[in-house]
Amino acid sequence: MNTYAIAIHGGAGTILRSVMTPEKETAYKKALEDAIVAGENILKKGGSSLNAVEAAIRTLEDNPLFNAGKGAVFTNDGKNEMDASIMTGKDLMAGAVAGVQNIKNPISLARAIMEKSEHVFMSGLGAQEFAKKNNIVFAADDYFFTEARFEQLKKAKETDSIVMDHNDEKKFGTVGAVALDTLGNLAAGTSTGGMTNKKHGRVGDTPIIGSGTYANNNTCAISCTGHGEFFIRSVVAYDISCLMEYKGLSLKQACEKVVMDKLVKIGGEGGLIALDTKGNIELPFNSDGMYRAS
Amino acid sequence: MNTYAIAIHGGAGTILRSVMTPEKETAYKKALEDAIVAGENILKKGGSSLNAVEAAIRTLEDNPLFNAGKGAVFTNDGKNEMDASIMTGKDLMAGAVAGVQNIKNPISLARAIMEKSEHVFMSGLGAQEFAKKNNIVFAADDYFFTEARFEQLKKAKETDSIVMDHNDEKKFGTVGAVALDTLGNLAAGTSTGGMTNKKHGRVGDTPIIGSGTYANNNTCAISCTGHGEFFIRSVVAYDISCLMEYKGLSLKQACEKVVMDKLVKIGGEGGLIALDTKGNIELPFNSDGMYRAS
Repeated sequence: MNTYAIAIHGGAGTILRSVMTPEKETAYKKALEDAIVAGENILKKGGSSLNAVEAAIRTLEDNPLFNAGKGAVFTNDGKNEMDASIMTGKDLMAGAVAGVQNIKNPISLARAIMEKSEHVFMSGLGAQEFAKKNNIVFAADDYFFTEARFEQLKKAKETDSIVMDHNDEKKFGTVGAVALDTLGNLAAGTSTGGMTNKKHGRVGDTPIIGSGTYANNNTCAISCTGHGEFFIRSVVAYDISCLMEYKGLSLKQACEKVVMDKLVKIGGEGGLIALDTKGNIELPFNSDGMYRAS
Repeated sequence: MNTYAIAIHGGAGTILRSVMTPEKETAYKKALEDAIVAGENILKKGGSSLNAVEAAIRTLEDNPLFNAGKGAVFTNDGKNEMDASIMTGKDLMAGAVAGVQNIKNPISLARAIMEKSEHVFMSGLGAQEFAKKNNIVFAADDYFFTEARFEQLKKAKETDSIVMDHNDEKKFGTVGAVALDTLGNLAAGTSTGGMTNKKHGRVGDTPIIGSGTYANNNTCAISCTGHGEFFIRSVVAYDISCLMEYKGLSLKQACEKVVMDKLVKIGGEGGLIALDTKGNIELPFNSDGMYRAS
């Protein structure tokens, strides 16, 4: 049996020791472990990397600790607006969704767009209509209400600031997963609730194929987290793939070049998880902390 | 004085000789010429490539012949929903907008997002609110009403088909421009009304930095047109840049590889306009026709 591998992240973020109680730290670690196990259970039975990525991300989306799905942060007008994307390395198929509300698992909607629509990328109400027709599970507003997120919004509004999820020591960002299955196929996915207090309509890198998410069996699978604007302008995920394919860099070299050199030069904070077809895993980040596991 | 250059496109499309009257052909040619002149007038006075790209695209957006701005096609629910993006090669700054209605010149909104917001990409109502606050010109529904586009929608609805703009011999697609100014700075922009009869919410490659639009002074400026889903999955615009930067291909070689080989292999119809810092222009397309000028 060939090798399989999976890595996940729970967003880039600074966790100050002073505010991180041992209980909290245990809760985060357990949540990440649960997600890895959900994915690994699929891979070790010979299941697909696509299924593993979706399962791992659903586990994180269902956990209020992370800024995706249930734990998504509040926008300026008190809504939860979520983005997600998924891609398979075998055939370069992809699905992405932006600005959806009341979708319990945005990653599964992204997958449905990939598999059941003729489009790659849908947004807003149109995406929600598509979700209804394709039996995607919705959840009421109160499912997404968490006291901590609401307090974040109140605080951000008082200072009129838009807060990147990883700029506050009390919260965590975007989630993502990359996987390699025993058939040698790569997949990648990313899901987020965006920025606290963001104005309705901002789209980050998470739903952008090539920026927040990319998978290609010739090179690697990538899921990013960080300050999305810089990741879009740098086309981060595809840049790593191109450095491997066109310049012959290893996964490790490509990740270091993009995250620790190119992104740093333009001021882009964040990181990513990366996996190649040999099962090598890289987890580079240039901000103070990033929760990840493999 | 250093060289300057500009190229534009009016979308990929098949124009059957049988339906293209000499009068119509003259009108299209004049419209493209007007756009080139608008851009060139700026460049020859030493103006920026960013200004030239915006001016050329505004000219095309104001012309009902093209599927952008005034001539945007109708969505399934009879609205005009437009996307645009713009990027400067000097500093990799970018702005993009998706799914906006009643914006007279979406390319100018994309530029305002780049220059006046902290975001790169905004969509829908949020983008329109931003537009209002930044004195972007709005136009009423009837400004966008053209008999020909409405007939297209009726016809598409009768057959329940989503029609790519270049799949009907009577219409033309996405518009775009790339320019090089006398300071050696590249810029690229793209603007579209999307697909006739598309369901509310589909996002194509036009607003995706790296897919529909890309500019980098190290390599090239690119604006794409075609079947957007394939352009997103292939990260077309940035792929050309990477082939030049990482593999040492010329602009011509990179364009041929991506448009005539890689895109063809996955079934992606369309083309692009490309410009490098030496003023070399490439206009590759793999569909039957593409209106372009330089």
